[in-house]
Amino acid sequence: MAEFEIIKKLTNILSINDKDVLIGFGDDCACVNVNGKKLLFTADIQVENRHFIKDKITPKDLGWKLVSVNVSDVVACGGVPRWGLISIAVPKNIDISFLEKVYEGINEAKNFYKCEIIGGNTSSANEIIFDLFLTGETEKFISRSNAKEGDLVFISGYTGLSRAGLEILLNNTNNLDNFELELIKYHTRPTARLDLQKKIQKYANSCIDISDGLVADLGHISKMSNKKIVLENIPISPILEKFSKKYSKDPLEYALYGGEDYQLAFTVSKENERYFKDCFKIGYVEKGRGIYLNDKPLKIKGFEHL
Amino acid sequence: MAEFEIIKKLTNILSINDKDVLIGFGDDCACVNVNGKKLLFTADIQVENRHFIKDKITPKDLGWKLVSVNVSDVVACGGVPRWGLISIAVPKNIDISFLEKVYEGINEAKNFYKCEIIGGNTSSANEIIFDLFLTGETEKFISRSNAKEGDLVFISGYTGLSRAGLEILLNNTNNLDNFELELIKYHTRPTARLDLQKKIQKYANSCIDISDGLVADLGHISKMSNKKIVLENIPISPILEKFSKKYSKDPLEYALYGGEDYQLAFTVSKENERYFKDCFKIGYVEKGRGIYLNDKPLKIKGFEHL
Repeated sequence: MAEFEIIKKLTNILSINDKDVLIGFGDDCACVNVNGKKLLFTADIQVENRHFIKDKITPKDLGWKLVSVNVSDVVACGGVPRWGLISIAVPKNIDISFLEKVYEGINEAKNFYKCEIIGGNTSSANEIIFDLFLTGETEKFISRSNAKEGDLVFISGYTGLSRAGLEILLNNTNNLDNFELELIKYHTRPTARLDLQKKIQKYANSCIDISDGLVADLGHISKMSNKKIVLENIPISPILEKFSKKYSKDPLEYALYGGEDYQLAFTVSKENERYFKDCFKIGYVEKGRGIYLNDKPLKIKGFEHL
Repeated sequence: MAEFEIIKKLTNILSINDKDVLIGFGDDCACVNVNGKKLLFTADIQVENRHFIKDKITPKDLGWKLVSVNVSDVVACGGVPRWGLISIAVPKNIDISFLEKVYEGINEAKNFYKCEIIGGNTSSANEIIFDLFLTGETEKFISRSNAKEGDLVFISGYTGLSRAGLEILLNNTNNLDNFELELIKYHTRPTARLDLQKKIQKYANSCIDISDGLVADLGHISKMSNKKIVLENIPISPILEKFSKKYSKDPLEYALYGGEDYQLAFTVSKENERYFKDCFKIGYVEKGRGIYLNDKPLKIKGFEHL
């Protein structure tokens, strides 16, 4: 059974009956009403040898990334991050200085994103596991399910870079070119697009962060909004071009299906297009279903972790 | 390095600078101000072969326990549980019906405690890991650090039963006596004392839930309140008596040092003693430090998970 179906089956067991729960399972964050304030909840777990390989990422970057992927979910719902709890489970013989550096990365990130880590718990396990729970707040919840016919589709930056970086990392090559080191950084140290939060909250009809890959994540918007998304222009980063040339790869494949970019994909009405000149306009929303590249339907497949 | 010191070292890295954070690390819950409401945050991770053994607990009880241990933290701070997120990481070949039963246990518990699970995330791992993050709300935060000289010390029920139940489970004995099956239930299916929440919020000066063991947890109150706690009467459950006779054990050792009871230990001024006739009065608070049984200082040692 696919992960998606398992989650659906399990979450169906937990019916929600609380008028203060505005959004439950199925979006980037859950959302509750607390005395008139909309609070966002998200959690993301990082498991050794699934989400990261200890020798392939510095502990500082690991801490940074843990915070960033959660902040990205909050921003995708139009919010700003506020308070987090961190659960860690680590082997008993772990080097404490490794953990300290992870926490230094967490600290750097929470200062950068202006949020706080205020609690957590520790345990032992055979693998290294970090689970961050993060809350945020927003005046308006931007969901995956509100894309409208006639909306334009934007992405906040190039996609596919993180996937290319991961492949370089895994190939374990020495003497890497500068563009390769840069690609690796996109994988190990992504930055959540908190800089766009105000505009997303104000002007986007729907939004998602790109963690599973551009097509897979737009697939969520398409399915939950019950609309067709037609892509026309997929921007290819110059460094992804270089990578594709060096390794004889198809850059479009990376841009469409590479995951863990933590850029935002969102839809905006034509009248609000002008607010997103710093983003890439890649297509539009119309009646129907599925994701198309011009007139070609695209297979919706997700990025698989290690 | 002891777990406690590691946590302290790590959390010191994450300084908090946010006036809405009323309580950070170090208590049963963190606490934030949201538009005048006090929100509680806690998280507790359950790791296979650390916190549970798959063959020794039914999946339904596992789900129940996961919720209960978190609710217990919320109640210990005087609050009622509201919304949770669940992170799971499981081996790829896991039996889905096992997970469904865990979720049925979670569902049963969240209905019992009148809270909701509204989101989460799934991942793969070699071990089975459930991490529940739970929020609650309270009008008044009851901390570990506010025990006062002259307070009486109470516990909400017998202690040591869960530890005895765990030992029976691990001994893998067949033909168990009824009292043994009952002890096992105290370990596999603890009930958080939500029934006492209103009285704790109103009348307790300090409170903690008993997860590490009575002496260890009172040790937290003693240390954080900078007071001495003198114990006089430790109640021994009749079924713990039976267990101790059958296996030649010292029941007091279990009552003092057994963990995972999820009863509440709290201190109350003399004038409010009358509200807790359904609880056991076990001692008092005075100037000084440490935990004493009559005039004998007790070693503060914690319950170790498997």
